[in-house]
Amino acid sequence: MRRIEEVAGNNTSDLTEMNRSAIVRILQQKEVCTRAEIAKLMGLTQASITKLVGYLIEMGVVSEVGIVKGNGNRRSIGIRLNAEKNLVIGVKFSRHVFAIGVFDISGKLYTQKETEFGLDENTGIVLAQMKKQIRDLLDEYKNIVAIGLALPGPYLRKEGRIAMVTRMPSWHNINFIEEFENEFDKPVFIEQDANAGALAEWWFGDHGRPLSSLTYFLVGEGVGSGVVDNDRLLLGYQGIASEVGHISIDYNGPVCECGNRGCLELYSSTTAFLKEAKLKLPELFRDKYENRTMACERVFDAARSGNTKAKALVEKIAEYIGYGCVTLINAYDPEIIVIGDSISKADELILPTIKRIVEERTIPEVSSRVRIKISKLSIDPTLYGAAAIATDRVLRKPSEYLFTN
Amino acid sequence: MRRIEEVAGNNTSDLTEMNRSAIVRILQQKEVCTRAEIAKLMGLTQASITKLVGYLIEMGVVSEVGIVKGNGNRRSIGIRLNAEKNLVIGVKFSRHVFAIGVFDISGKLYTQKETEFGLDENTGIVLAQMKKQIRDLLDEYKNIVAIGLALPGPYLRKEGRIAMVTRMPSWHNINFIEEFENEFDKPVFIEQDANAGALAEWWFGDHGRPLSSLTYFLVGEGVGSGVVDNDRLLLGYQGIASEVGHISIDYNGPVCECGNRGCLELYSSTTAFLKEAKLKLPELFRDKYENRTMACERVFDAARSGNTKAKALVEKIAEYIGYGCVTLINAYDPEIIVIGDSISKADELILPTIKRIVEERTIPEVSSRVRIKISKLSIDPTLYGAAAIATDRVLRKPSEYLFTN
Repeated sequence: MRRIEEVAGNNTSDLTEMNRSAIVRILQQKEVCTRAEIAKLMGLTQASITKLVGYLIEMGVVSEVGIVKGNGNRRSIGIRLNAEKNLVIGVKFSRHVFAIGVFDISGKLYTQKETEFGLDENTGIVLAQMKKQIRDLLDEYKNIVAIGLALPGPYLRKEGRIAMVTRMPSWHNINFIEEFENEFDKPVFIEQDANAGALAEWWFGDHGRPLSSLTYFLVGEGVGSGVVDNDRLLLGYQGIASEVGHISIDYNGPVCECGNRGCLELYSSTTAFLKEAKLKLPELFRDKYENRTMACERVFDAARSGNTKAKALVEKIAEYIGYGCVTLINAYDPEIIVIGDSISKADELILPTIKRIVEERTIPEVSSRVRIKISKLSIDPTLYGAAAIATDRVLRKPSEYLFTN
Repeated sequence: MRRIEEVAGNNTSDLTEMNRSAIVRILQQKEVCTRAEIAKLMGLTQASITKLVGYLIEMGVVSEVGIVKGNGNRRSIGIRLNAEKNLVIGVKFSRHVFAIGVFDISGKLYTQKETEFGLDENTGIVLAQMKKQIRDLLDEYKNIVAIGLALPGPYLRKEGRIAMVTRMPSWHNINFIEEFENEFDKPVFIEQDANAGALAEWWFGDHGRPLSSLTYFLVGEGVGSGVVDNDRLLLGYQGIASEVGHISIDYNGPVCECGNRGCLELYSSTTAFLKEAKLKLPELFRDKYENRTMACERVFDAARSGNTKAKALVEKIAEYIGYGCVTLINAYDPEIIVIGDSISKADELILPTIKRIVEERTIPEVSSRVRIKISKLSIDPTLYGAAAIATDRVLRKPSEYLFTN
């Protein structure tokens, strides 16, 4: 029985590990803390914290940083995480591009690189390029502890396969677990892209603490969502929960590749948006444009300059995103919804409409309390999310994964 | 920080408690087990199990039951849960009726009683009746360890208030936590009705084990859902996650009391079904009928007898339930969906259509694996669920809640 095994898997050393993990996670978010502050946050005695911190100092995971002001103005020794000692590689894989970055476990970026490829390009060649770049980074950065890989969903987590990606049929049969599991001498963790975005916002986003439940709403070429409910990623049976892009908003609507009708993705993706934009504003698309995100931004810029047709197009997609938020609220009751990916670049153009729709279409107890924000991460949330996948795993089991002295 | 407090809340005695809880939960589902079987299921040594079981025997929570056949045909002593020593009261509260039952922690029913009331009846009088009946049961059954209360949703868990119940505005301001918290000398646990149904199916349903993720789809006068994802109830920020009844299936549809348009509840509730039925089949409704469930059953019986209009009505609602299942799959990726409450009495009349819709509208990887079933619990799932709310809580902390010698 799965749930019993999980409970039973705990033993005294696991428990010590959970407490170590909790300390590392506090320091990941707070930079510098005193032992007394940690003790208070964790509800443990200072003696226990001293012991746990002592072990982490010995491991080299944390350091003392001299005297800081503690509780009640007493001067105490500060503790900080040696984030730079533990790096992760994040790999974002999407329809036209893969991106690879090196980060430390506090989310600081060291290097990143994007590689474009065609939808019809040989999958083996793309994978070989990706692995080569990872191998080069492992050679260059010696203290990498884990690799996180973010894939477009729905990703069948147990099988290692992408179940269906619109316009990417050739990737359907790649087994990512087999491809990556034993390829490097570092652990590789794989999640779907919207889940990665949710973890990025959870770990690296500036949303205040405590935070109990966060939903990341990815609105780009694909439309999806990732849900952290009470500190845990919602995964479902096969790992493909929270596919909001394929929740219908019109049961009589047009047919989607997934078989459903009226899927939200058909109304609110960049594909849907640009199709309309090219019809209504052909003058914006006379020159070759670099990619979809930039093409969308042309329309947003036109709206910002007062172009009436562009404003109407942006208003329309904001309404659909609003319906999506209402669905997310009724499905997951999040404390915060963070909207990310290409369409989120419309930012202040779409946010008032989204909030109005949520106010109109949910009960006041909900609309008055849920926070709806545009992602402000300075790094692509899916790439950052790939790093967060790895960070999440290693910080939950520090002595298993982190570098020690 | 919530998540850190939760982790930090664990200490060595909590861990022992988690292992005791795991043993009690194994026995709750398996009736009789040997120590070796428990050790194998939990991945612990037999010596640890012997110690843990010894404590539970001393507490009187479990007993030895003589020789049974163990692993490899060896004769071993069987262990069983003394379920009858620990009873719970379940209280179901719904729009026209409240029901109270006494159960043991293996789900066996001892007694139950229903009390009807009018939607406009004074809430204080109804609550006083409910409390009086609970008090009488506490006097009659001395070994009750906890009380579970299932309320119609969306129930704001932290506040103790029902946020909105269609057609029950007078109940909006009752604070159930205040009303019940200190009323009895037993702990009272409160959840929304569809969550209660999910826990009932999780604890008492016959769905095989292991089971990772289950969604209960309540289709009655209200429409809702309860989601157990990887052994944990999905709750959200305010406790009102998984309100599938208010997820829209048509963003241009009719306006719902919640403010949204085209809510699933407007198409698939008994209210919607009976409204259509009275128009199309007035001959079935000439006599006064007792309640909505029975009124629905008249239509189902007519369909079973070959009445074409009744068959068309049932087919139509089965399609809407199918769309609801597709939404649940895209939202939660459950291993199993269990459909319960009044409309589920249509059983074999609706199941093939529901399965067809799911097959048409989801990817094969999902439709071929998700199990869709009609609830077969012999007891009203919401009342049973109220008992499951209490059972879930006490079995997760046996030495805190269970009666001991």
